Amino acid sequence: MVRAEIVAIGSELVLGGVADTNSLYLAEELLKLGIEVRYKTVVGDDSKDMEAALQHALGRADVVITTGGLGPTEDDLTRKVVARVTGRRLVLHDETLQRITQRLDARRRRMTAELATQALIPRGAKVIPNPVGTAPGFFLCFKDESKAERALMCLPGVAMEVQHIFPEGGSALLQEFVGPAARGTLLRRRLRTFGLVESEMDARLRDLYTAERSAVLGLQAGIYGVDVSLTVRGRDPDSAEAVMRRMERAVRDRIGDYLYGAGDQTMEGVVALKLKAKGLTVAVAESCTGGLISQRLTSVPGSSVYFDRAVVPYSDRAKVDLLKVSEALIRTKGAVSGEVAQAMAEGVRERSGADLGLAVTGIAGPTGGTKEKPVGLVYLALADKKTAVVRSQLFSGDRDGIRGRASQAALDLLRRYLSGKETG
Amino acid sequence: MVRAEIVAIGSELVLGGVADTNSLYLAEELLKLGIEVRYKTVVGDDSKDMEAALQHALGRADVVITTGGLGPTEDDLTRKVVARVTGRRLVLHDETLQRITQRLDARRRRMTAELATQALIPRGAKVIPNPVGTAPGFFLCFKDESKAERALMCLPGVAMEVQHIFPEGGSALLQEFVGPAARGTLLRRRLRTFGLVESEMDARLRDLYTAERSAVLGLQAGIYGVDVSLTVRGRDPDSAEAVMRRMERAVRDRIGDYLYGAGDQTMEGVVALKLKAKGLTVAVAESCTGGLISQRLTSVPGSSVYFDRAVVPYSDRAKVDLLKVSEALIRTKGAVSGEVAQAMAEGVRERSGADLGLAVTGIAGPTGGTKEKPVGLVYLALADKKTAVVRSQLFSGDRDGIRGRASQAALDLLRRYLSGKETG
Repeated sequence: MVRAEIVAIGSELVLGGVADTNSLYLAEELLKLGIEVRYKTVVGDDSKDMEAALQHALGRADVVITTGGLGPTEDDLTRKVVARVTGRRLVLHDETLQRITQRLDARRRRMTAELATQALIPRGAKVIPNPVGTAPGFFLCFKDESKAERALMCLPGVAMEVQHIFPEGGSALLQEFVGPAARGTLLRRRLRTFGLVESEMDARLRDLYTAERSAVLGLQAGIYGVDVSLTVRGRDPDSAEAVMRRMERAVRDRIGDYLYGAGDQTMEGVVALKLKAKGLTVAVAESCTGGLISQRLTSVPGSSVYFDRAVVPYSDRAKVDLLKVSEALIRTKGAVSGEVAQAMAEGVRERSGADLGLAVTGIAGPTGGTKEKPVGLVYLALADKKTAVVRSQLFSGDRDGIRGRASQAALDLLRRYLSGKETG
Repeated sequence: MVRAEIVAIGSELVLGGVADTNSLYLAEELLKLGIEVRYKTVVGDDSKDMEAALQHALGRADVVITTGGLGPTEDDLTRKVVARVTGRRLVLHDETLQRITQRLDARRRRMTAELATQALIPRGAKVIPNPVGTAPGFFLCFKDESKAERALMCLPGVAMEVQHIFPEGGSALLQEFVGPAARGTLLRRRLRTFGLVESEMDARLRDLYTAERSAVLGLQAGIYGVDVSLTVRGRDPDSAEAVMRRMERAVRDRIGDYLYGAGDQTMEGVVALKLKAKGLTVAVAESCTGGLISQRLTSVPGSSVYFDRAVVPYSDRAKVDLLKVSEALIRTKGAVSGEVAQAMAEGVRERSGADLGLAVTGIAGPTGGTKEKPVGLVYLALADKKTAVVRSQLFSGDRDGIRGRASQAALDLLRRYLSGKETG
């Protein structure tokens, strides 16, 4: 496969605490063209460092893509450095200059020398128009000293601009460069699970790591569970697809109903689909998760079809007021208890008229834990018209981790109910 | 200053859609030691690629830190590659082997050849113990071919382990390597603002970009506002601090009350401090933000002191039920209106008995917009015992962006009220 390197330019990416995320997007897009990213480099706005990074990248990769450094300020050095590294002059691109002038006119601002630099491109480069920003990208093909074909594409650093102009203009230029022959096949699939920790998943899948020579299996653990990634390389699509099918089937067999989704699916997205398919509505009462379950369920466009309301009854009084949880129950069992979780789920269901009530109460920490009820203890409850299920779980991690895991566990309880696996 | 490169190892970081975030943490920690990260490289679990990356890094940086590739699987190649690049044998580290055996015993698992590889380190390396995981890190000092001093530190890839073992063991080894003389001074500060877009902020600060030769000013725009970062380099701490003070004062003058915090402060953290200081409580009614404001206010430990409850009345019926918003008002003005926002803020305040009621209603999209009320239109309201303030704003972006900005604007309304700047 064609080898690529992404060079992310910007001091904020080196020392400013900002992660380079453009390369995640670009690596995915390049794969679709049969181009495999092998290296990523991050370098600050320093012309010597940039020059060295670019020269090195062009030495080891067929395709080099830079992001950032195309703006109008003194820190924006990508044009100059590319000109030097490729031995080309910078020339003014008239159309771009006109477009910048028009943008400025619309805002009643004047053209300056700094702003005009954004219309400079290395001689022979193709411009990649940027309708959502000021500076366009550009693309160069050339032969290096060893007569190897090289492609260099320079894109802006703003994620929104990259994700607009790459598919509009950048992708086709690279497609032409690599041609259909270079393609090969690389298939990727991601299976998302919740409920097993990484070592448990590893034990279930161990013999599959080496089951197929052309397949790579990886695990990625996070707050919302363990993702299993499958990568298959092959000469032709058919054989690669056959290997992928075998691998995926074997992995699914071993994961069982811990699997909640695939690809970019989220737990809330899966739950939303199931609620819509069954024509059911849900209401949420969440205490320690503080609104996170509600926020996730409503992050899906069109959520008003299945989502009626949430309440976050932080104080005991709010639990009584909003959900008619009995004061005596809170006094005798404690606000963090299975009984109160159940009363919250039933309370929010009845008062909202929704089909289902989902509730969480727990101790997110860092303080508030006791020997009997430690930090991380969370009670989950799901009520329908007839009955309720209650679960308790002990989550590890800091406050954010516990809240995140508890929200995922609550949504997973709902998912399993909607799959008919957990009917009380 | 001493130059460093961070080499993040792992195929998931190149092609798996996972961002390298260890380097963000390490870059900050290295700065404290007077070591400046100049390059970051990301490379997959491929021994040739890793070898090339490591060799190149050792050619251009005094200190090289790798993360990842120290586990027990076939994909974990860091040890082998480091041995080859530095021309050293791998030797068994007895103490580490014992510790791994003990960990396995505790879980009634047997030692295997794969697991034992985690006790191998290059001859002459110092072990960096890892009490929170299995594989330790290690550290090597040597002279390269040109007799230049080089330091190479290998750390695991799991963020939690890196953040535990670096300060415990790694930092002191590097401190010893660079010595106090190498230090120099590099100061960094971040000022956080909300309410101005990047170009407006840029216009306010323009003349400061070149005001001090040793200072660098940068802007970083995100959903929650624009951060202004200040970096000052100097030979000695006193003169650097003096420049930083001048710069910070000048920036603060130009930002005014758009400034909401500094460093790692968040809007919710600042609001929490102000609520506690004034002994006030707040209740939230949020529609389009779906629980995000509540989730942010309760993400601060100890939030039960100032946070009473939130309701997310997604349906009109929920607005009537939970907040006593009048049905006639919703019918005549619409659920997305200043009048309903005010009624929601007043309703949640009165019913909860909290000192303040904060409400949001709007259109988060992607559908549901009209000519009069487009996607992104959001009404915010804040009520106290006597009065209410209502604001409307039009936010850009996708659903997540609109919801995020609306939550930040609502918290900012509360912040300004608590600063006595917005009293109706």
